[in-house]
Amino acid sequence: MKTSLDCLPCFLRQSLEAARFITDDPGIHEQILRQVLRSAAEMELRQPPPVMARIFYRRLSEMSGLEDIYRPAKDRFNRLAMELAPELRSRIKEDADPLMTAVRVAIAGNVIDFGINGGISEEDVHKAIKKAFAEPLAGQTEEFRDAVRQAKKILYLADNAGEIVFDRLLIEQLPIERVVLGVRGRPVINDATIADARAAGLTDMVKVIDNGSDVPGTALAFCSEEFQRAFSDADLVIAKGQGNFETLSEEPAPVFFLFKVKCPVVASHVGMPLGTHVLLKGG
Amino acid sequence: MKTSLDCLPCFLRQSLEAARFITDDPGIHEQILRQVLRSAAEMELRQPPPVMARIFYRRLSEMSGLEDIYRPAKDRFNRLAMELAPELRSRIKEDADPLMTAVRVAIAGNVIDFGINGGISEEDVHKAIKKAFAEPLAGQTEEFRDAVRQAKKILYLADNAGEIVFDRLLIEQLPIERVVLGVRGRPVINDATIADARAAGLTDMVKVIDNGSDVPGTALAFCSEEFQRAFSDADLVIAKGQGNFETLSEEPAPVFFLFKVKCPVVASHVGMPLGTHVLLKGG
Repeated sequence: MKTSLDCLPCFLRQSLEAARFITDDPGIHEQILRQVLRSAAEMELRQPPPVMARIFYRRLSEMSGLEDIYRPAKDRFNRLAMELAPELRSRIKEDADPLMTAVRVAIAGNVIDFGINGGISEEDVHKAIKKAFAEPLAGQTEEFRDAVRQAKKILYLADNAGEIVFDRLLIEQLPIERVVLGVRGRPVINDATIADARAAGLTDMVKVIDNGSDVPGTALAFCSEEFQRAFSDADLVIAKGQGNFETLSEEPAPVFFLFKVKCPVVASHVGMPLGTHVLLKGG
Repeated sequence: MKTSLDCLPCFLRQSLEAARFITDDPGIHEQILRQVLRSAAEMELRQPPPVMARIFYRRLSEMSGLEDIYRPAKDRFNRLAMELAPELRSRIKEDADPLMTAVRVAIAGNVIDFGINGGISEEDVHKAIKKAFAEPLAGQTEEFRDAVRQAKKILYLADNAGEIVFDRLLIEQLPIERVVLGVRGRPVINDATIADARAAGLTDMVKVIDNGSDVPGTALAFCSEEFQRAFSDADLVIAKGQGNFETLSEEPAPVFFLFKVKCPVVASHVGMPLGTHVLLKGG
C-alpha cells in the first residue's frame, strides 16, 4: 500500500508527539518539526507509510541522541499487559472457541500504538481489552482456522510492545512447535523488538527472529536475508497490526492480517469503517 | 493567541482538503502539498493561526487561479440556512428567552467551517441546529445580556457563509439600529464576505462593512482604517467563530466571543472540552 498524501499531516503529528516525548523544550519541538517539514517536502511517496515513517523516526532518534525513544513506555505497557494476562488466559481457556477468543484479545491489544495515539493510557488498554470479547470481528475467520490447522511453518509477526503479551495469548492457542515469532530489528516508535519478546516470556516459548530492520512494519526489501528466508519458508504468516498490513498487503504470500483499523487511509483501503477489528486474508 | 506547533499538521490537512476541492488531479494535490510543506518549514509562528492560514489559502488561490475557491459551497450553505431560517425564527420568537435562544442558534451555525471540516454536509448542519436548543452554553451569558442592553454601538463580526444566516437571527434580537456588521474583505476558506451578507438579507437590515483583509479572523493590523475605526468606536463587539477568537483574544476591547470549540489548541487555550458552545467575555 502506497503512502497517501493524507499520511503527511499524520507524520507531522506523530513527529510532534514523539518530540514532546523526548523533551519539554518547545524550542527543540519546533526545530524537529521544521526538519520534518523540510524532509516531507522532498520525500518520495511511492513506498508504504511505515517506510516513510522510518525516516522521520530515525531523524528524531539522531536529533535526540536516544536510540529507543519510547523504551520507558514500552516497559510500562509490557508490565501492564503481563498483569492482565493471567485472567485473560483463563477466560480464553474456558471459552467454547479459544482460538477465536485469543484472536479477539490479540486484536484488542493492537490499541497500544504510539504512532496512532502518543497519549494512549493504561485506562484505554483496560477499556479495549474489556470490549474485546464482544467486539465484532470482520474477515475470513473460518479460513484462518483451517490455515492454522494445516500450517507446518507459522511465522507470527508481532507489532507493538505491550500488545506482544496479548499476541502471546494467541500464540499459546497455536501449535507452538511450528511457530516462529518475528520482531523488528531495531527500535522504532513503540514497536516490539527482541527485548519485548523477552519481557513477554516468548523467547522461552518459541523461536524468535528479528527482521533486521527499523521500518515500523515488514518491508521485505529492508529485512535481513535470514528473515526473508523465514518469510518465504512459512506456509502461514500471521501479521499483526496496521504497519505489517501497510507493508505486506500487496505481497503474494499466505498471510492473514490481524489488526484494528486505526486511520482513515487504511479504512478506505480495506473498505471498512475506522475502529473495525479485522482478520483479513492477504496474498 | 499564537500559532501552536499543533496547528502545522492541521494547516497541512486543510490545504489538502482545499486542493481536493479545487481539482481531482492527484498530481496537483501533491504539488500543492509540497509547496505548503516548504512554506511551513520556514514560517514565523508568532502570529495567530488565521494569519498563518491566510498564507496557505493565498498560495492555493494563486496556484488554482481561483479567487474564491469555496464560492459554490458557500452559496449552497447560504441557501440551506435560508431554508431553515423561518422555522428557527418562529422558535426563537416563541421562546421565553429569545436573545439566548438566538445565541444558541448562532453558535450552532458555527459548525459550517470548511477549515475545520472540509467534508461538512447539509445533514451535519441539520443535526447541529436540531441540538442547538438543548446544547449547554458556557460563559458569561448575563453579562452579555447587560452589555447588549447598554451598548450604543454594536459591531457584530460574522464568521462563515451559511452561518451568517444564523447570525442574522441573533442580530434580529439586537437593537438593530445600533448594529454594524463586519465581514471579511476578501474570500478566504468559506468565510463570509459582503456577498454572503447580501445573500442572508443583512445588507438591507444593518450597515455592513468589510474589514479589508483576507485573514480568516480579525487581525486588526491587517484591517482597513475604516474597519479599525469601527472597531474602536464600538462599545460592544460580538465576535463570532474560532478565527475571530484566535485573532482578538488578546485585544483589550469590549468583546464577547461566540463560538463552538472546534480544535484541541483552542480547547486547551480556553480550558474547555472540544465541542463546547461558548459565550466568552474578552478584553
